[in-house]
Amino acid sequence: MFENDSELDGDSNPPLTPKAARTRTAIRDAALRSFREHGFEATSMRKVAADAGVSVGNAYYYFPTKTHLVQELYVEVQEAHRDAVTPLLAKTADLTDRLGVVFRCGLDQLAPFHGFAPSFLGAMIAPESPLNPLSSESGPARDITVGLFRDAVTGAKNPLPAEFAARVPQALWLAYLLLSLYWSYDRSAGQARSFTLLDLALRLFKLGLPLTRMPLVRGPLLQLLDLVGQVGK
Amino acid sequence: MFENDSELDGDSNPPLTPKAARTRTAIRDAALRSFREHGFEATSMRKVAADAGVSVGNAYYYFPTKTHLVQELYVEVQEAHRDAVTPLLAKTADLTDRLGVVFRCGLDQLAPFHGFAPSFLGAMIAPESPLNPLSSESGPARDITVGLFRDAVTGAKNPLPAEFAARVPQALWLAYLLLSLYWSYDRSAGQARSFTLLDLALRLFKLGLPLTRMPLVRGPLLQLLDLVGQVGK
Repeated sequence: MFENDSELDGDSNPPLTPKAARTRTAIRDAALRSFREHGFEATSMRKVAADAGVSVGNAYYYFPTKTHLVQELYVEVQEAHRDAVTPLLAKTADLTDRLGVVFRCGLDQLAPFHGFAPSFLGAMIAPESPLNPLSSESGPARDITVGLFRDAVTGAKNPLPAEFAARVPQALWLAYLLLSLYWSYDRSAGQARSFTLLDLALRLFKLGLPLTRMPLVRGPLLQLLDLVGQVGK
Repeated sequence: MFENDSELDGDSNPPLTPKAARTRTAIRDAALRSFREHGFEATSMRKVAADAGVSVGNAYYYFPTKTHLVQELYVEVQEAHRDAVTPLLAKTADLTDRLGVVFRCGLDQLAPFHGFAPSFLGAMIAPESPLNPLSSESGPARDITVGLFRDAVTGAKNPLPAEFAARVPQALWLAYLLLSLYWSYDRSAGQARSFTLLDLALRLFKLGLPLTRMPLVRGPLLQLLDLVGQVGK
């Protein structure tokens, strides 16, 4: 099962040698293939190592647990999200349009995972799971996405009042998680329904923006954002 | 392990004899104890039968799968929800207050399950799971809760415009699921944070009510409610 022990790179150090980088990529690709074909639960480090043609020990060297493989995937997807968003944000100054860019590029990046996303939901929703997007382990991927929403807000020609600008990026990231949940259940072609839902929500968001300056709304809305931001704490 | 085969009631028919009803309750209680102490995954029909002092065959007669035990729990909780809501709805005519009654009583009914609710989340969120609140198997419990929101809306002195009244009960039920998710992560004493979040959301809902009569808002909001109602379809 683990014939390729010659690939053992257990003594290499970062930065990776070209060979080590190839091994790491091979393990990552094998994991992705297995997640896609067999789902999250049925994927084991043992299987991933065998599929990648490396020893189990070698696979564990690069990714100490299956969780590390998923976190790698989280970060890769959010880095691609950032790369897709950056040039588009430079082209539009309207707050709502900028938020639309972040949400839409986010869904675009998820597209290749639609088929097997449901198999991850169980591990993602458990409060104590390292795969929960709220966990400390998910911090690196989360920081990228919250940062994109922060960029969208602070770079707009019509920025939000400061108290909102401070709280909204985290709330928008949670809204993005909910939209992703809707998307993972969405069986419409190309998940078109999720994109339409987003467009409608953004239209209503734009219409509601002036309300943030009404004292009657401002107070409870700021408190609500604070509580929402405390989810899982 | 299954000493009490004398309890076999495999040939009884509904309505249950007093003895059969006691057996059924014993199995249900043992399942609830096991869910509480060991979580959803670690609870098996074999273990439930042993704990209830009945044979496995007898347990299967009353509850063909573990899923049936959870559905029983869903329906029990929502029946208790309805019983708690009904007298309170009779006392208040304001729409927002009536919705508050349904949401708050719903959280109250969940209180005894807070400790082990997280162990159910994984099985509840899988799109194809019979324990998913959107599944056909969850229909009986769901119908009760959506019905409570419908009663709250239609019985109010300030009812919603008809197009909203038709769509809002389903959307409120989904909001209740999201609130329950927040609640299941909520580690504040007595989950006070979830109740405060609800109060703030209701205040904002009340302030936003007049917007449903603005044509610019009405159109996209009705479309949004339609899409939200199609989740999982």
